[in-house]
Parts: sequence; structure tokens; C-alpha cells
Amino acid sequence: MIHSEFCILNSAFTTLITIMKIEIYDTTLRDGAQGVGVEFSDDDRRRVIHVLDRLGVDYIEAGMITDAASEAFFETLGPMQKELSCAKLCVFAPTAKVGTAAADDPLLRLAAKAPTPAAAVFGKAWLWQVTEVLGATAEENLRLIRDSVSYLVSSGKEVLFDAEHFFDGWADNPDYAMSVVDAAFEAGASRVVLCDTNGGMLPDVVGLVTGAVCRKYDRVGIHCHNDMGMAAACSVAAVLAGASHVQGTVSGIGERCGNANLNTLIPVLQCKLGFDCIGERLSALTSAARAVSDAANLSFDESEPFVGGYAFTHKAGTHIDGVTKRPRSFEHIDPAAVGNERNTVVSGLSGRAAIVDKMRAAFPEERFSKDDPRVLCAASMIREREAEGFDYEDASASLMLVLDEALGVRQSFFRLESLKVIVDENAGDAFSASAVIKIAVGEREYLTAGEGNGPVNAIDEALRRALLRFYPQIAEMHLTDYRVRVLDSRATASAVRVAIESTDGRSVWRTVGVSSDVINASWQALRDSVEYMLKTRQNEE
Amino acid sequence: MIHSEFCILNSAFTTLITIMKIEIYDTTLRDGAQGVGVEFSDDDRRRVIHVLDRLGVDYIEAGMITDAASEAFFETLGPMQKELSCAKLCVFAPTAKVGTAAADDPLLRLAAKAPTPAAAVFGKAWLWQVTEVLGATAEENLRLIRDSVSYLVSSGKEVLFDAEHFFDGWADNPDYAMSVVDAAFEAGASRVVLCDTNGGMLPDVVGLVTGAVCRKYDRVGIHCHNDMGMAAACSVAAVLAGASHVQGTVSGIGERCGNANLNTLIPVLQCKLGFDCIGERLSALTSAARAVSDAANLSFDESEPFVGGYAFTHKAGTHIDGVTKRPRSFEHIDPAAVGNERNTVVSGLSGRAAIVDKMRAAFPEERFSKDDPRVLCAASMIREREAEGFDYEDASASLMLVLDEALGVRQSFFRLESLKVIVDENAGDAFSASAVIKIAVGEREYLTAGEGNGPVNAIDEALRRALLRFYPQIAEMHLTDYRVRVLDSRATASAVRVAIESTDGRSVWRTVGVSSDVINASWQALRDSVEYMLKTRQNEE
Repeated sequence: MIHSEFCILNSAFTTLITIMKIEIYDTTLRDGAQGVGVEFSDDDRRRVIHVLDRLGVDYIEAGMITDAASEAFFETLGPMQKELSCAKLCVFAPTAKVGTAAADDPLLRLAAKAPTPAAAVFGKAWLWQVTEVLGATAEENLRLIRDSVSYLVSSGKEVLFDAEHFFDGWADNPDYAMSVVDAAFEAGASRVVLCDTNGGMLPDVVGLVTGAVCRKYDRVGIHCHNDMGMAAACSVAAVLAGASHVQGTVSGIGERCGNANLNTLIPVLQCKLGFDCIGERLSALTSAARAVSDAANLSFDESEPFVGGYAFTHKAGTHIDGVTKRPRSFEHIDPAAVGNERNTVVSGLSGRAAIVDKMRAAFPEERFSKDDPRVLCAASMIREREAEGFDYEDASASLMLVLDEALGVRQSFFRLESLKVIVDENAGDAFSASAVIKIAVGEREYLTAGEGNGPVNAIDEALRRALLRFYPQIAEMHLTDYRVRVLDSRATASAVRVAIESTDGRSVWRTVGVSSDVINASWQALRDSVEYMLKTRQNEE
Repeated sequence: MIHSEFCILNSAFTTLITIMKIEIYDTTLRDGAQGVGVEFSDDDRRRVIHVLDRLGVDYIEAGMITDAASEAFFETLGPMQKELSCAKLCVFAPTAKVGTAAADDPLLRLAAKAPTPAAAVFGKAWLWQVTEVLGATAEENLRLIRDSVSYLVSSGKEVLFDAEHFFDGWADNPDYAMSVVDAAFEAGASRVVLCDTNGGMLPDVVGLVTGAVCRKYDRVGIHCHNDMGMAAACSVAAVLAGASHVQGTVSGIGERCGNANLNTLIPVLQCKLGFDCIGERLSALTSAARAVSDAANLSFDESEPFVGGYAFTHKAGTHIDGVTKRPRSFEHIDPAAVGNERNTVVSGLSGRAAIVDKMRAAFPEERFSKDDPRVLCAASMIREREAEGFDYEDASASLMLVLDEALGVRQSFFRLESLKVIVDENAGDAFSASAVIKIAVGEREYLTAGEGNGPVNAIDEALRRALLRFYPQIAEMHLTDYRVRVLDSRATASAVRVAIESTDGRSVWRTVGVSSDVINASWQALRDSVEYMLKTRQNEE
């Protein structure tokens, strides 16, 4: 245990001495997969496992053993375990069914057979649930736990026991809750994990109860849900009370309001409290968080603590001024510690300081002040576009082009002369789209056509065919995300904002277009994306 | 103060006796507006103020006084205050500039003139920042605080003082931090609010330090940021240590990782700890949260604690079984307490229990079991569509139509015979789109055309014109949101999912379409939306 107050109160930026190792157990692929909208293919699961292993977590729960669709996947875990550098793979199974011996329970037999070094078994620690929901006696539930744990231990596995509803159970009947922990440890569990399954607990309570268990045992874990928005705080409270094993998911995804967010917990425990979780690999946290989010096909929450794109992004003018003078003034840790970086955004609120900041970054050889006429011009252009619905906060490639325009250095790589798109469908047939585009590069005009299974695709195709002869580097870029948002509630007739994310395999950039027409808005974002790529490549040469 | 452990450990569903009133101070329109992507028009601000007043908050910070663009807006606050039932409007201003008397400071003069009963003044409580960032002496900073507070008090306002960076300041020099609190109270501040401006504090520390201040004063407030994912937990810790005034924003919006989330804090304080914040109006919380998010044009985070659409949504099969038997088994409070409701979703993971649940809700007069052939048929249809990229978790109107299909009762209100869309642009002109649609209703075919400033709009227009003669009720519905997501990273050539939200002013429904073509996917979602509306209206008749 550690006196948190001392460390925090005396160190905004000090890295503290490592006092104690806290194990990290990731359940993104099991509990995370229970989040609405979350679905992992077997390929996704493999990607996530490798990302988490490289990040340095201690255990990775690969999935629920009941998931019949994934039997083939579980068989691949054996070879995969051999490729991992530090993480132990783990399968997740319930205790044996009421009245059944563990050795006869089909799910536990599957778990015993799974080629993983570890298995987690979950059972109930809340007496009310045992009798009312499970329909078992208090003693039968304890027998199920003992039998299930020792069966898996005898199959050669390390067994972790998840005590479901532990805190509600403690409130109901603390003696019974403790007897569940006793049963699991007696049967050979390596860890007993106290779960706030319903997520309704406050940190004080979690600390109090965990402390009581830790007075008796020293291999106690914590598993919290976020229904009170406090899963991270509750987990920290448990660690400060003696828990040495923390469970959670990447970005806190999970059923209802999600699980404890490992992206938050790991840096809090390491940077603020001096525990060791993943050591020096902490600086890979931001990229790992994005890779997992990508595998889960989730949109990343940019305001996520530590790893979000906005976590160190300053918008208010006074904050931008302050943080430029002295980072500590508005940053609670160095963003680089978690592999993130400082950013400022340009908006009505941020004012000219942010524009000056961006201009200095884009043109390091020039000098800009707040009263520079070029800054004033850029500010007024941005205000005008924002009024039309453009949003540059998350489209810095488009913003760079606007700044180039304000400075009078925006290059014209090509001009659009005309564009026609035709989408045609007859009942039963597939939709098909074709685009006819006429562009000019310098004095030369080109008319090309593109076909695609959608209008944006057809335009993209036609534009590439026209431009490739001038700019062969275009072959290297492709779009990675395409999003459309209606800007007000009158819907199809109102303006839409199209945001495009593109990559050339080396970097990622984002552009934006706004129009009452989704095709036109897409065209603008597509044009900016291509222009930005051409401009960047030119500067590199 | 209250012994939290007792209340929580003994009550999962008990409403406790109200012990103490905690004031709620909303800063959505000021600190919330500093979030990336957040922007409020003056109209939005007015809407938000009325929503918050109806919810029963005590103070509403209407904006930063420095926001020159909004002078006209500040003038309207006088008449608006008269319309409010309980909230006091408040403007936000910095202390006077270094070396300036408050009475000569232009911003403070503006604040004094603003027609609001209250004003908040912020000043620095961290000595390091005073000398290093502000460039003032320790004594000059105290003078600025005293002078600014007493000037505004003498102008007839209630003055709240925000002690910026209070906790970092306490760590640096607790005597100086406390002298800032002393100065503000001596000058007549009604409340002194301790701010964790950088959001780097843990709940234990916030509780410890707040407790120290509360031993001296009893009108102490708390203002936390979420950079550690713990703003709500820190605020609760402060209240348990004696703070009686809590600041935050709706949905926790704000700069970087946001502010303390009032949607979380209010129910935690009221339902879990027995404090009184907004009394019986708590049941309006969910709708208020959505209304504010709507005014800010933000997409609502459905996994938000208490008020999110997923907060009481169960996906795992065992959880759905359990919560159906006994709500307490997987719900930490009654969703109705905050105006929310229980939900189950249909997905690969949830299995047939969820489908049975949906079918029972849709056809209450029928009986379904898990082995009913109609349930098996629906499950297989849903699996097939999910494999194509459909996602019904957030498109329950489309799901209803699939269930109708599985039950053989899906009605055909109209059929698409053919559809052509032409988008044409010449350099400089506006884009324009036209659609030609042929639909059949029964034996009768109709060919109509629609024009619009985008293809989806043109189709919507053509479809309405064709259908209105048969179904005049269509005039009442309109689309409220339209979103497109690319389903994998090959971008424009890959499948897209279009999600549409529609309303008829009475209810809201969501539909989904998937295709390699954005126009086709939009068509599917549009068709489902119209069919769902026609079906619902028919059932009502």
C-alpha cells in the first residue's frame, strides 16, 4: 500500500519510484464485446490480442467459452500463446450448473480443453442472487465454486475466480460473500477478483470492502463497471486498499455504461501513484488504444482521458496562452508519457492565438503576430466558413489549405470543369453509379469517366484516372473513413458535413466539405484530401 | 456530512431521507462550450437555459463576459431571468487585470452591468501560477481578488468566487491557497468554489483538501475536470467532505476531457447518498440531457451513465434472463427514477432470449418460446443481415420490420419499380440533383420526379410526391438525422451503413440500410422509415 496523498500532492510531473507491481487483466474481447455496437471477428480478436501483448498487459481474456460460434477460434489460441511476449491468454466460463459435477459440465470441459494457460471462472457472491436467481442453496453454490475451480486447476490451468456481485453481496451478507472468497482460494484459485457487476458502487465503499478482504488475502483483484461513471475511481480505491490485480477494457467498452477503462487506469496507477503496470511501454498506450478501437470498428472518443485526441487539446484563448508559456499550467501530465501530444484548435472561442500557433507550425521560417494582416485574413475566412457549417477542429488538413489560401500560397494542382453523376436502378438489379468528370491541370483539360457501386466511389475513380497521369503518387493514398452529418434537424433538405479520413500508409489526414448536397460536400472533402497529399509530398521533395 | 457507507451498503433501491441540500451550478454554456466541436448559438443558449431551469438547477452560467460577440445576448438575460422558475443566471469574468482597479477594468464593468442576479469571478489560487504565468506578486493577486469580488458585490450582485487550480495550489503552498479563500469570503463572496482546473486530482486528495477548507467555511463549492476520468468521483468526495455546491456540465462536455458530468452527479448524490439536488424533477433528467445535447448539436453518448440509451440496456443472454426475473440482479437503480427505461438488444451475443423479448413486446397477444420456429427464423434472418453489415442495435424500427417478415405479417405498402438519380454540376454552378422514381401501390404504378440539392433529398422528395396521394399522413414525418459509416477501411469502394432517424413530432424511430452504394443504403433506410411509420399509424387506428 502507498500513501497516495503524499505522491500526488507533491508531484505534478515527477515520476515516482515503482513500489509495487499491479497486474493488468484485459477483458475487452469478452466483457467489452458485450457493449452495444461492439462485435469482433476472429481476425479482429487476433489483432487485439497482439496489440495488447505488445502493450504489456498480464492477462488477456480471449472470450466466453459458451460462444459456440468461436470453437474454431479457441483452438487457435494455443499457437497464438507461443507468439506472445508476456500476456497469458485466458478463457472465461461459468461455474458448473446447479446439481452437476464440474467434470460432467460441458462448458467446464470445454474450458479445461482450451489451449490457454489460464481460465477465469465466475460465480455468485451475493446470497440473494444465489437463492432467488440461481435457485441454489447457499451451500450448493459454495460447492459449485470449489468443484469448478479445483476441476480446472487439476486440468493444469491457472484459475482466476470472479466473485460476481461481490459488493452487493457484502452489503447483503458479508459473511457469505467472504465464504465465497474462502472457497475459491481453498480450491486453488490463483486470484479472486471482486466484481461490482451492476456498477452501482462508490469508491469509498469499494475501498472499504476490498480492504477488508485484503486483510485476509493478498492476491485480490478488482473488476468494476461504469454505471456510476466511477469505474476507474473505484478500481483505484481498491488498489489503494490492497488489490494487486485490475481488470478492465480498452476505452472502457462494455455492456450498459461499460467497464473500467484501462486507458485511464494504467496511467493513473503508474504516473500518479507510482505503481508499475506496464513499465516503459506506457508510451505505446495512445497508439494501442486507437488500434483496438479500430479493430472493434468503433469511433474513437477523442475526449477520452490520456489517449484521446482532445485530451491535451486547448481551445480557450487563455489556456492556449498559458500552456504555451508553461505546460504545467494547464496539463496535469506530460502528454508524451502516454504517447499523446499537445494540440490547439482553431475556433471562434480560441481566437487568433490558436491561428498564430497553427501558422507558426505550418511555416516555421516565418514570423506571425496576432495583428499580422495574414492572421486577420485567415481568422475572418475561418469565421465565414464556420458560419456555413465547416468545422476545422477535426479537419486539420482542410484547415492547412485555408491557411495557405490566407497566405496566398495555396497551389492549384487541378481545377474542376464539370461533373455529372448518374445512379440508375431497376427493381431487383444492383444500383450502379457512373461519374463523368472534366478537370484541368494547367492548360490541359481531361474528360474521364469512372464507374463505381456508389456515386462517391465513381467520382473518386474518375478523379484518380484523370490525375494519375500527372501525379502518380496518388496511387498510394486511399480513404480510411467517410462520415456524413446533417447539420440541422430539417434533415435531407439541409446542409450536410462530410468528413473524410485518408492515409498513404505513412500518415493520416482529415478533410471536410459542407454543402446542401452530399455529393458536393463529398467532392470538396475528396478534393482537399488529394490537394493536401500533393502539397505535402511536394514539400518533402 | 453523511456516512456514505451505511446508505449505499444497505440500499440498492431505497430512497433515503433527504439530509442536506446540495446546490447545482451548471456551466454547460461556458465551460462546456470550450469542448472541441461544441458551439452554441444565442438561440441554443436560450433553449438550454429553459431546459436547465425546468430541471431545477440552482445556478446557470450563461457565458463568459469576454465573449464580445454575445453582448446582445447578455442584454436579453434580464427578461429571461424573469421567466425562470428557480435558477439564477450568472455571468463569468476574470479578476481585474494586474495593476488595475476593479472599477476601471472593462470586463468587470461589463459583468457589473449584466442584468443577472449573480456573477462568478475566477482568480488564481496556485502561487506558482501567480508569479510565473500571471506575473503578479502574491499580495497583488490577493488584492485583485478582494477588489474584484467587492466591486461586483457593491454593484448589487451575488458573487461566487472560483479558486482556479486550487488543489495544485494547495500542494504547492497550502497557506497561500487558503489565503485566497479567505480573501474572497472577506470581500463578500457568497460561495468559494475549489477548482481542479487541470483535472489531475484523485478523489482521496480532493476529499482531503476540501475537508480542510470545510473545517473553516461552510459555503464551499467544487468544480472538477475529467482528465483522469474521475471528475464525478472527485466531486462526490468533495461533497462527502463538506462541500455544498457542485459545478458541472450536462453530459460532462468541456475542454480536453470535459467537466464533471451533472447527469451522473445528480442521481449519484440523490439516489445513492440521500442528498437533495433537484428533488422530484430527477425523473426529467434523461429528457433534459437529450434536449441539451440536441441544442449543442452533439451526438449523444448512449453509454452515458443513468441517461444513456444503453445505460439500462442488456445484451448478454444471462443478463437478459436475470434482469427479466429480478431487475435488481443487473440494475443498480430503477431506470424510471431518472426518466430512463430498460431495454434489451438483439445481436449475435444476446441470442434468442432478446428476440423473444422483442417479439413479446411487439405482439403482446401472442406467446413465444425460444424454440418457436418463428423465433428461429427471425434469429437466422438477423444473423444473415448482420453478416452483411446491418446493425439493429440502434435501429429498432428496421428490426421490427424484420420481425414482421419472420412472422409473415410484413405489409407491402409500396414497391419500388425503378429509380434513377442524376447529379449535374458545371464549374461555378450549384450542384443539383434530380430523381425519377417509379413505385407501385397495389396494382397502380406511379412515375414521379423529385428535385433537390442532393440525391437523397431528391429521392425523398420524389417518394413523398408519389406516396402522398395514398398516405397523406406522410406529410407529418420528417428526418431528424442522417449518418453514413464506411464498414471497413477500403473506403469509397466498400460497404456503407446509413442510419436514419425520423420523427412525426410524437415519437422518434431509427432505421438502417447497408449497401456498397450510399444512395442504395439511403434508399433502404428511407423505405424502412416510411414503412414503419405507416405500419405504426395503421396499428393505432
